[in-house]
Amino acid sequence: MTRSSIGDVHPQHMVFDEPILLQCGETLLSYQLTFETYGSLNEKKTNAVLVCHALNASHHVAGTYNGDEKTRGWWDNLVGPGRPLDTNHFFVIGVNNLGGCHGSTGPSSVNPATTEPWGSTFPMVTVEDWVETQARLATKLGIEIFAAVIGGSLGGMQALQWTIDQPTRIKNAVIVASAPKLSAQNIAFNEVARQAITLDPEFYGGDFYQQKSLPRSGLKIARMIGHITYLSDDAMDVKFGRSLREDVLRFNFDTEFQIESYLRYQGDKFAETFDANTYLRITKALDYFDPAAKHSDKLPATLSHAQANYLVISFTSDWRFSPKRSREIVDALVANKLNVSYGEIDSPHGHDAFLMDEPVYHDLIGAYFDRVWKECKDE
Amino acid sequence: MTRSSIGDVHPQHMVFDEPILLQCGETLLSYQLTFETYGSLNEKKTNAVLVCHALNASHHVAGTYNGDEKTRGWWDNLVGPGRPLDTNHFFVIGVNNLGGCHGSTGPSSVNPATTEPWGSTFPMVTVEDWVETQARLATKLGIEIFAAVIGGSLGGMQALQWTIDQPTRIKNAVIVASAPKLSAQNIAFNEVARQAITLDPEFYGGDFYQQKSLPRSGLKIARMIGHITYLSDDAMDVKFGRSLREDVLRFNFDTEFQIESYLRYQGDKFAETFDANTYLRITKALDYFDPAAKHSDKLPATLSHAQANYLVISFTSDWRFSPKRSREIVDALVANKLNVSYGEIDSPHGHDAFLMDEPVYHDLIGAYFDRVWKECKDE
Repeated sequence: MTRSSIGDVHPQHMVFDEPILLQCGETLLSYQLTFETYGSLNEKKTNAVLVCHALNASHHVAGTYNGDEKTRGWWDNLVGPGRPLDTNHFFVIGVNNLGGCHGSTGPSSVNPATTEPWGSTFPMVTVEDWVETQARLATKLGIEIFAAVIGGSLGGMQALQWTIDQPTRIKNAVIVASAPKLSAQNIAFNEVARQAITLDPEFYGGDFYQQKSLPRSGLKIARMIGHITYLSDDAMDVKFGRSLREDVLRFNFDTEFQIESYLRYQGDKFAETFDANTYLRITKALDYFDPAAKHSDKLPATLSHAQANYLVISFTSDWRFSPKRSREIVDALVANKLNVSYGEIDSPHGHDAFLMDEPVYHDLIGAYFDRVWKECKDE
Repeated sequence: MTRSSIGDVHPQHMVFDEPILLQCGETLLSYQLTFETYGSLNEKKTNAVLVCHALNASHHVAGTYNGDEKTRGWWDNLVGPGRPLDTNHFFVIGVNNLGGCHGSTGPSSVNPATTEPWGSTFPMVTVEDWVETQARLATKLGIEIFAAVIGGSLGGMQALQWTIDQPTRIKNAVIVASAPKLSAQNIAFNEVARQAITLDPEFYGGDFYQQKSLPRSGLKIARMIGHITYLSDDAMDVKFGRSLREDVLRFNFDTEFQIESYLRYQGDKFAETFDANTYLRITKALDYFDPAAKHSDKLPATLSHAQANYLVISFTSDWRFSPKRSREIVDALVANKLNVSYGEIDSPHGHDAFLMDEPVYHDLIGAYFDRVWKECKDE
């Protein structure tokens, strides 16, 4: 079978005029979601798969815009014709989450009530809010039940939350490199990133749009910190080690080591393309995610009404969300006698492994979706 | 035996008018070192021990100033009468390193040539430079040979460098929670901290003294990042977990979780007391440290002229400088048939364990120094 990219794709937009009461207590009267779809919805509408994005990504999961290779979607190696999540079989949907900065209503959008950008006044959004908005989008698209919801990292948290909040509307959840809640260290890294942004004088308390400024320095620092946590110590040593940009030490504060140059470049690029207020809110959504909190910290009780089948995957060198965190999810699912497959992939690439084309990992997902596809056909 | 603090102590200052050619190629015509001593130098001058400090510390190793408990030295639990490094036996010296901000000549000192603070023009200093200046101080104090040089983290690197550069002047090296060089991840964390400082508009390229400003935000972020790497994930979870400051989520950007509050407090406190230019230079000294680089990356060859006896100690939960990094040092020492003891201490406290009163750790150091003391007496 030929594996290939889906080719050129186009974002779509859907406006929702039904108010939504967010978990934080605020209500949005209307909002827009930007999304993309790949493949075709079958007649029985049983082959829809939702892909949830993590901190830095968007609805643009696969394919390119106008043939430009640089615009390739963030999970293009996984989603496409003949790929593990095969668009010849499935109708795949990627959604930019509410509060995002890639087309869906977020802090950089104009608040109709003031005709100014929301900025600091945009409400806090949570994983539960995202599941609710994704479910509303599905309904509008005529999809009653998802064959699967899949995501990595924060995306995996959304897949898990789907099985808690919408147990009758999801048949399979694929949870990759995720965790049932953040640790204190996870929160700590997020908090440093937030402080870097909010202490940047160009942030103006979140209302920098009106000032025609950008908190570039803060976003750059935030991204650099994030990047370190996505890579394993070993992967960094293999990729950069102590290599210098020039042959000799310069004894100054320019970029002397390759790793410095790489991080600064990643940070600068990110600062130009990502919204600071969105970054703040997504890190808070990560911090808040803790479905077991309502059940006296008992994850099995939290999942007692779940009905989905699960594929849970972790990576050995991931120290942001280590395999131990995935096993907590697996244990809670097993305690509920739910159908769960668990793969602990031997990879040196740290948390970032979930975005990479690791054969065993992709084969595992491919085999799982083959089974999902058979179930769709047999219905 | 009673273990107690050394009590009130007083810093001393020594001015050096012999120029020093630094590793970076620049020459300082004169400089001052600030230091403290505890205990008494014996008649044969065989009982001197040098304590080297790490990133955030100073010459103030033990005791208090004017009876104020808040001024207790950073390694007071280790150094004092009856303590593992017993000041009833040893003459202990703590030195603020060149480039520091606690009395020794550094970026915040006045450059006699301009009568302005050095600021951005202060040269880069390295571990080798520190060893040279410490050796000169020892000479002025009449100490030809140190019974021991001891340090944790960056302090341990200085102890190691002493045995390479001054093999005839050091009898024992105690290297705690250290590494033979930084990994790419270690450099990456340092680089993020440096970017946070240098991108702070209050930094003014390093010449903020004249502007009567302080890059508080940058220093705060730098310290917060550092702090995360000093603690283990588990220690953070035990100490803070996901505990909230108030009972309910507030859905805002104030400090909601205890860990956020702790980090911000630590960062704010540090920003008021530490010099940004010193922080930049010490992190660079860490990055540059790589004694094996001159020997084709072969650490055993680097240590071929060393004569000291060694005690190397690591902590199981230290992910900044893991036990693996200490074992690299041990292996290189063993390859040279040097006398080395190695202790891998089971501790949940991460890198910070080296500053803590862990009984097994302190007993190990105490037993080692008992032997060193017997050797001093027998001479």
